[in-house]
Amino acid sequence: MTAFDIQDWTREQLQAVEHALDQWVTADAPAALGEAMRYAVLDGGKRLRPLLVLASAGACGGDRLLPWMHDAAMRAACAIELIHAYSLVHDDMPCMDNDVLRRGKPTVHVKFGEAGALLAGDALQTLAFELLTPEHSEIPAQVQARLCGLLARGAGHAGMAGGQAIDLASVGGRLSLAQLRRMHRCKTGALLETSVLMGGVAAQADTMASQALLSYGQALGVAFQIVDDILDVTADTAVLGKTVGKDADNNKPTYVSLLGLDGAQKEAALLAEQAQQALAESGLADTQALQALAAWVLQRRH
Amino acid sequence: MTAFDIQDWTREQLQAVEHALDQWVTADAPAALGEAMRYAVLDGGKRLRPLLVLASAGACGGDRLLPWMHDAAMRAACAIELIHAYSLVHDDMPCMDNDVLRRGKPTVHVKFGEAGALLAGDALQTLAFELLTPEHSEIPAQVQARLCGLLARGAGHAGMAGGQAIDLASVGGRLSLAQLRRMHRCKTGALLETSVLMGGVAAQADTMASQALLSYGQALGVAFQIVDDILDVTADTAVLGKTVGKDADNNKPTYVSLLGLDGAQKEAALLAEQAQQALAESGLADTQALQALAAWVLQRRH
Repeated sequence: MTAFDIQDWTREQLQAVEHALDQWVTADAPAALGEAMRYAVLDGGKRLRPLLVLASAGACGGDRLLPWMHDAAMRAACAIELIHAYSLVHDDMPCMDNDVLRRGKPTVHVKFGEAGALLAGDALQTLAFELLTPEHSEIPAQVQARLCGLLARGAGHAGMAGGQAIDLASVGGRLSLAQLRRMHRCKTGALLETSVLMGGVAAQADTMASQALLSYGQALGVAFQIVDDILDVTADTAVLGKTVGKDADNNKPTYVSLLGLDGAQKEAALLAEQAQQALAESGLADTQALQALAAWVLQRRH
Repeated sequence: MTAFDIQDWTREQLQAVEHALDQWVTADAPAALGEAMRYAVLDGGKRLRPLLVLASAGACGGDRLLPWMHDAAMRAACAIELIHAYSLVHDDMPCMDNDVLRRGKPTVHVKFGEAGALLAGDALQTLAFELLTPEHSEIPAQVQARLCGLLARGAGHAGMAGGQAIDLASVGGRLSLAQLRRMHRCKTGALLETSVLMGGVAAQADTMASQALLSYGQALGVAFQIVDDILDVTADTAVLGKTVGKDADNNKPTYVSLLGLDGAQKEAALLAEQAQQALAESGLADTQALQALAAWVLQRRH
């Protein structure tokens, strides 16, 4: 067995994810819909959520993953990326954040019009559930149903969409630290948690492993958002690939505005450590990729 | 066994659907999200799609439906209504049809703002898949997965959303009758077809029954859209509960503009007859509700 190299691992997984997305997000949808969907998803993004799914499946199954488990994990990885992509498309629209730049490119509504962006986002969300329910597949129905259920709960009113609603209601207002945590646990945390859990389901993780993955995902989710808030203050637009300083401009409460830059950095480091701790206590053998992703979340510059 | 009365049947089913929606579309989503979701779904609409699901399940299972089949059919009925509701919320937005009136009430974006409507639509779509994947349920995973798969395919880029994209691209342009048929088969037909098929899956219909339901659903879907086009010309706003004459105003091609009013009425009647024919040849015993719904589609005034 060769030593684990996170860069090799990441390169290999990203290639597989891009290939799968390219294949599954087809251009043959009517009119400009397929083109807009592909524009929103392909060639961009950190792919953190897909990497978490695949790392999590790997941690639970290692070399013992069956072919259908690989297929289920890749479908889960792409499905959650589609949900993430749809949320960005709708978020960027004029009635929400009114952002014109994303990943260094014009946003979808700038390129395809508002109606085109609205529809593309809608269809990306639907496609996520289509990917999880392939016909004539060896993926057991139980796994398909569980993946759909997890994704719906992570993306919906009690997860990502709920977090967006709190965010929307909070503009210009004051949130306490507890309220801010709740908002982010929904808005960003829920999908990151869901990524890790979906990987576990694809690899048929046992209860103990699932519990450890949940703890890891929860800590990682909040750490990610804190770093996001820090980068909104410290990074520049060219590196970040999106407009910086938007939060302060919109008078949105952030971890930085509540804890200060230093306090936010300490909090993120503490959470990353909690995530590593959960892995250490999990009993899982192959957690190197999950460990590396937690370290990356803390150290990322964009 | 008492004689079948469609009015009794419809009243009973509608009561059950309203009760289930009221229970499942919870108000406890954060901020105004839950309120907007409920506003978009409750107390309104013909509920044709849920009725089709329940009629279809009844046709396949009759009095022999097991408790979990009833539950699956009701979840499918509500899930497809949520998809329908989300599409209306997004359709009405200023960047799409810019409609201010729906079912005689202000549209969701008028009442909750554009961002609120965008989010509510998104969360309604997600909730549909959540309803189909209940935890700790007796509904077999195979049924749950199949219902999710059918709904995603009916609502997505090759179904409803694809039809919307064609519609969007066609404004001010000319469609041939073949193109118009394709647009409507996707935009409206796909979900009506899907309703009927989901009812069949909930009741574990055999292949022959599923095939008959598909033929019925396909014919009904197109008939419904033709009648919609006819009503856009002949009805008045008060009866219809939405703005009439929008299609002509937007220079959208319709069955009426292509076939004339008389031609469109004949085409709709022919399709309704095809739908009845499919039922007659299906071998299904309890098709009275499906028959009555096909007749209603043809004769409806709103």
